[in-house]
Amino acid sequence: MKRNIENLWRTFYVFQEGYYEIECPTVGAEAIFIASGHVKEFADKMVQCPHCGEYLRADHIVEDSGITNAGALSAEALQEALHELPCPICEEPLGDAGVFAFNLMFETTIGPGSQRKGYLRPETAQGIFTDFPRLLRFYRDKLPFGAVQIGKSYRNEISPRQGMIRLREFTQAEAEIFVHPEGKDNHPTFYRYADYTVPLLTIDRQQDDREPLTATMRVAVDEGVIVNEYVAYYVALTHQILVAIGVDPTKLRFRQHLPDERAHYAVDCWDAEVYSDRFGWVEIVGIADRTDYDLRSHAGHSGDSMTVFIPYDEPKLVRRRQIVANMGVLGPRFRGKAKAIAEALAASNPGEDGARVTVDGEDYFIPADLYKIREGEEEIRGEEVMPHVIEPSYGVDRMIYVALEHSYAEDEVDGEIRRVLRLPAAVAPVQVAVFPLMNRDSLDEIAQEITRKLTRHRILAQYDDSGAIGRRYRRQDEIGTPYAVTVDYDTLEDNTVTIRDRDSTEQVRVPMGRLRQIIPDLIRGEILFAELSRV
Amino acid sequence: MKRNIENLWRTFYVFQEGYYEIECPTVGAEAIFIASGHVKEFADKMVQCPHCGEYLRADHIVEDSGITNAGALSAEALQEALHELPCPICEEPLGDAGVFAFNLMFETTIGPGSQRKGYLRPETAQGIFTDFPRLLRFYRDKLPFGAVQIGKSYRNEISPRQGMIRLREFTQAEAEIFVHPEGKDNHPTFYRYADYTVPLLTIDRQQDDREPLTATMRVAVDEGVIVNEYVAYYVALTHQILVAIGVDPTKLRFRQHLPDERAHYAVDCWDAEVYSDRFGWVEIVGIADRTDYDLRSHAGHSGDSMTVFIPYDEPKLVRRRQIVANMGVLGPRFRGKAKAIAEALAASNPGEDGARVTVDGEDYFIPADLYKIREGEEEIRGEEVMPHVIEPSYGVDRMIYVALEHSYAEDEVDGEIRRVLRLPAAVAPVQVAVFPLMNRDSLDEIAQEITRKLTRHRILAQYDDSGAIGRRYRRQDEIGTPYAVTVDYDTLEDNTVTIRDRDSTEQVRVPMGRLRQIIPDLIRGEILFAELSRV
Repeated sequence: MKRNIENLWRTFYVFQEGYYEIECPTVGAEAIFIASGHVKEFADKMVQCPHCGEYLRADHIVEDSGITNAGALSAEALQEALHELPCPICEEPLGDAGVFAFNLMFETTIGPGSQRKGYLRPETAQGIFTDFPRLLRFYRDKLPFGAVQIGKSYRNEISPRQGMIRLREFTQAEAEIFVHPEGKDNHPTFYRYADYTVPLLTIDRQQDDREPLTATMRVAVDEGVIVNEYVAYYVALTHQILVAIGVDPTKLRFRQHLPDERAHYAVDCWDAEVYSDRFGWVEIVGIADRTDYDLRSHAGHSGDSMTVFIPYDEPKLVRRRQIVANMGVLGPRFRGKAKAIAEALAASNPGEDGARVTVDGEDYFIPADLYKIREGEEEIRGEEVMPHVIEPSYGVDRMIYVALEHSYAEDEVDGEIRRVLRLPAAVAPVQVAVFPLMNRDSLDEIAQEITRKLTRHRILAQYDDSGAIGRRYRRQDEIGTPYAVTVDYDTLEDNTVTIRDRDSTEQVRVPMGRLRQIIPDLIRGEILFAELSRV
Repeated sequence: MKRNIENLWRTFYVFQEGYYEIECPTVGAEAIFIASGHVKEFADKMVQCPHCGEYLRADHIVEDSGITNAGALSAEALQEALHELPCPICEEPLGDAGVFAFNLMFETTIGPGSQRKGYLRPETAQGIFTDFPRLLRFYRDKLPFGAVQIGKSYRNEISPRQGMIRLREFTQAEAEIFVHPEGKDNHPTFYRYADYTVPLLTIDRQQDDREPLTATMRVAVDEGVIVNEYVAYYVALTHQILVAIGVDPTKLRFRQHLPDERAHYAVDCWDAEVYSDRFGWVEIVGIADRTDYDLRSHAGHSGDSMTVFIPYDEPKLVRRRQIVANMGVLGPRFRGKAKAIAEALAASNPGEDGARVTVDGEDYFIPADLYKIREGEEEIRGEEVMPHVIEPSYGVDRMIYVALEHSYAEDEVDGEIRRVLRLPAAVAPVQVAVFPLMNRDSLDEIAQEITRKLTRHRILAQYDDSGAIGRRYRRQDEIGTPYAVTVDYDTLEDNTVTIRDRDSTEQVRVPMGRLRQIIPDLIRGEILFAELSRV
């Protein structure tokens, strides 16, 4: 099921969008996470109960006591709020238990001798940023382009007690899309989602406690609800993916980050939130315009160039003033410093009688007769631009959880309560079950042969001959198998089999030889089961 | 390309074999790796140069000095051999530098407070073993069954200096197949590979320095060259997969582990080795019969049941002797120990006058009048069997490397040297390139539309309009793209396009509307390019 969800995601990001998938290391040297800010910032505020010794999330305890948005409070404010609160485990007062930052990255050492510190990555994104120069070359120096990655990320959570919602080891599917800062309002295929409507819980509506606004992406961008076409495009694409994996669209909304929860560098950020009966509204996907923060930060730490040369349509002529030192005089007078002074002069802004420059912390006044000013025109063919990053980031494990929760149903079949997972066929772990009515008279061999033929065409088919046929249907209903093929005694007469539809529990007879085409068509949604009797 | 290779692997293991794919954690608690033996055993012998401080593999230095099979030497023997050898880095003598074991697992701590030690898994297999009870239930208590996993494994190599051949973080594709110990000679679909021939470098032939024996799997099993049908089946399957990803079959052999390199519990082990111009013979896949070693070890440490109840065809009547203690006497006499003594009695083998039992380290003699012996018959319906494990284990990164090396070729096209990757279409990172002959007159729009249509059908298509057409062909040859579609001025007249074949560099014209069918058929190998002109 996980692989199916990942493949569905690839249908959109790798095939529709044309972004190549890369794979970066999951263990990274410390320098990467210093550059990304994770070594310094990626921590939760924690407290240890002085009585029972349990480690606890300080913000969670404060939040549970009725104070909203405790995650944004400082350590001092949390400590003050905690003072009167009881430990949720042993119920003794927490008192002066110190609040401290606990970095959520798993730490390890690389190589022998334990000299080199490393971390398990807390998000897949950083690897794509450090690979930017290579990606740029791969995409032949043209913007926009994107790279995607599906892989494990790790967060050493203090108390992960929410099943698949909060895991220490989880799978992310992230896309990093690099765009020209002035091109963010022009997504090349925006037409795909211009008329697509999505429920948008804007900052205003959150503050006024109102329902989400449902708007088309065209209107959302034009009216400034979503910051630009790129962010809006991936909001709509995300909506489409989540519905495709089985999320109920009436329990899906896009919530805009409030100014105090948004990262300082992001200009706009939307979370796809899904309502879970068990966990309430859960963030499944985050879509952010991260500006050039990440590339700028990595460029600063690594010294690598993270810019793209964008040629102008026509070269521009620019007036340029060159300040050229007279080295014949400067050399003997300043000796070893002459070269540095000449360079400082070239970058200086001279007055009428001379120029002031600073070299190695010392100030020098260079009289006007020691240099010449040449005026001229220079042809500029383009400029170096640091791209902005649009990042849709998906939590794959959470996608699995909500797809399961929303697919679960109970109905009545033949007077009995039936438990059924109404998973989309593209997501179901078994796509078709194949049963012999009886385990004899060659019915079983025919069913096995059908199973083999279907799996040869990459259909996830499962043969099952154990128990009564009704019991086998129920078993497949429970794991969400959308179709079941049954071989019975009529098969021996006329080479037909039945196909049963999980959701309607209806059956139709079809020629056995046509299964190879009908089953893939049903799974891909190219025909509907209801149309089959008419085929 | 990596995803393509993984998917090709799944075609065999998930679809053909019907083994479900699971995903286990990559970070595991210490207890798992104590049970697996990795905490104690998974170490390389290392030495630190006393002069330059470099950490070195002791066995590698000794091996390079001309002593064969140094990996099997003890620390003491290595130390002795090293004494006179120079450090390969600074060339000073290593002298008495101590040889010590360096555990290759990356260590970390789980949760706050650093109380719980964890390791990054050194192989994917252990997760499948610990999941065995769940898998058994999933497969409804029937043998044989298998589970597969593709994922990252980690080894903190001392000096990984061989590119993709030795990585600290690498991807494994492993299958664990659980079989009845008495069923290893009967693979249910052995017929598939019975006549398949594979070059087998047996232990004998290695010792005599002879060429591999080429034999069918039927003959190899019947003559005892390969231990059983299961191992032979996966040897042949592995040969088929490696050839399918682009390995040259003349540079592929299966080498049997020598008795001193085989793990003590394995009864037979074969490595698929591929000849690399750069690295010599490289192990790509290992196929081992691991007996019940892993399950027995995990059962012993975790207390979980790792057996399968195998019912007999008919229940068996077995004579049983029951030894029943007379608690009325035993109770008052032995007080608190009475129950333990009664249990020990039940399992004892009494003599004529009484039985000797040991409880809590103390010996007791229980006279015959304190118990009764009842003889009777019991119906036994089956037995608990601990399955044996057949494990084919693939190094995905090494598969990528050898597929690239063997696909690389230089030939002459139009009087110029051409560099080309002859990757199989199923493996190539770009499957079809789409070019407009010119970047105008709507040729570009038509080519973009073709690209979109192909990608919608999950074909990895790449649009390229930059540079001369010959340059674009070369670029695609270099990255191994098997087909290129060109839109030219004839397209505007008659709706045809050309398809160019990478290997022959030949071109044919086909109707544009048929691309959607022709390209997938070419990629799947359902038609050959040479047949196209006849279509």
